[in-house]
Amino acid sequence: MGRIICTGLGPGDPDLISVRSDRLIRAATHVAYFRKLGRAGQARRIVTGMLRSDVTEYPMEYPVTTELPFDSPEYRDALARFYDDWAARLADLSRTADVVVLCEGDPFFYGSFMHLHSRLQGRAEVEIVPGITGMTGCWNATGQPITWGDDVLTVLMATLPEADLVSHMQRSDALVIMKTGRNLPRVRRALQAAGRLQDAWLVERGTMPDQRVARLADVDPADCPYFAIVLVHGHGRRPELEAAE
Amino acid sequence: MGRIICTGLGPGDPDLISVRSDRLIRAATHVAYFRKLGRAGQARRIVTGMLRSDVTEYPMEYPVTTELPFDSPEYRDALARFYDDWAARLADLSRTADVVVLCEGDPFFYGSFMHLHSRLQGRAEVEIVPGITGMTGCWNATGQPITWGDDVLTVLMATLPEADLVSHMQRSDALVIMKTGRNLPRVRRALQAAGRLQDAWLVERGTMPDQRVARLADVDPADCPYFAIVLVHGHGRRPELEAAE
Repeated sequence: MGRIICTGLGPGDPDLISVRSDRLIRAATHVAYFRKLGRAGQARRIVTGMLRSDVTEYPMEYPVTTELPFDSPEYRDALARFYDDWAARLADLSRTADVVVLCEGDPFFYGSFMHLHSRLQGRAEVEIVPGITGMTGCWNATGQPITWGDDVLTVLMATLPEADLVSHMQRSDALVIMKTGRNLPRVRRALQAAGRLQDAWLVERGTMPDQRVARLADVDPADCPYFAIVLVHGHGRRPELEAAE
Repeated sequence: MGRIICTGLGPGDPDLISVRSDRLIRAATHVAYFRKLGRAGQARRIVTGMLRSDVTEYPMEYPVTTELPFDSPEYRDALARFYDDWAARLADLSRTADVVVLCEGDPFFYGSFMHLHSRLQGRAEVEIVPGITGMTGCWNATGQPITWGDDVLTVLMATLPEADLVSHMQRSDALVIMKTGRNLPRVRRALQAAGRLQDAWLVERGTMPDQRVARLADVDPADCPYFAIVLVHGHGRRPELEAAE
């Protein structure tokens, strides 16, 4: 009787994987990971050179989306069947061996694994190994603390309505905005409306060899970078401590 | 010419330190860490058994606070001098050897190292190695994803005014509340006012051997746990995807 072990891979640099995940990945004989059809997959790329030569790999390829709008009932059904199928398959595999599932960042922080996790309840033994979140890698790349003192930090998805983005941006000291890509113009408008655009950074592929850090205001508005996070640093919500510096 | 390398230790379990930090800590000949006077120190405790036998340790002991209110100008001055002194001392040490500074969690996320970091600009070569944040360890301990879909996550310090806490608690899907301790009654009142108390969890010493996970509503109000974080999980801000589950 094996287990399904979901290992957080961290932000991208394999040297930032935890000691426990590193050990599990190197020893694994069955390894599964999500990827888009026809892509190598970011999770698989992170563990390049780490897998056993006799490993069996299970790329879990998302259903093709080009034919269907992302929000259509048909696509949602296809996605639900995809998760159902892989949950059944991994549960089956785990009857005879441990299966290691590779997840970028931390599995419980906006991770795709949760769709399998909820389906595997009561059907298999599941263990999660936390990882460094992608946002942590990104704020590290800026070389400045994201928060200190009593700063309020809010994590927002760029897919939210613009008015919601503005409202949160006005109320928080530090900001992390994920799922940017095509939504970057909306994020820029919202930051401008909230008076935060000049303090915003765009971090693309944080901790990876081709990492890029730029002031968002300086980024070409036509640019829709991949794996990018927008950050606004807090400045320490405690004037008396700042004065003592 | 050496460097000052601040290594994030993660949430507490030494097996969750990154491969890079683990390697740096085990090779270090000079190791510094913050602690309260008369305490072993949580950072030092995490690396038990990992340090070289010939290591030189530099416990950076915070000035004693019992005589002075935390917010008094005198205490702030004492704290500023403490950081000034250690920044000078570490910069000096780094002229001849690498110095590894141990920091719980991730150094750039509410970390004490930032007070040295800002003082070391231009005076020493400083490298930061990210770590798994304490909150990531805590939500992992609850066995449920903290966020998915388009959830908004807000991180709050329990030291904030109660009205601010309530306002953020009402507007966010997922919540992390840190610096609880003596402020826990205020957090509880704010969660109650925001209608979120029944969904709140208290996680004490997440990922450590004596970890405790409890519903906040069930915790004795007189209990002021140490190293505790309060969490409210998001439920996926996308009704159409939930319906497809």
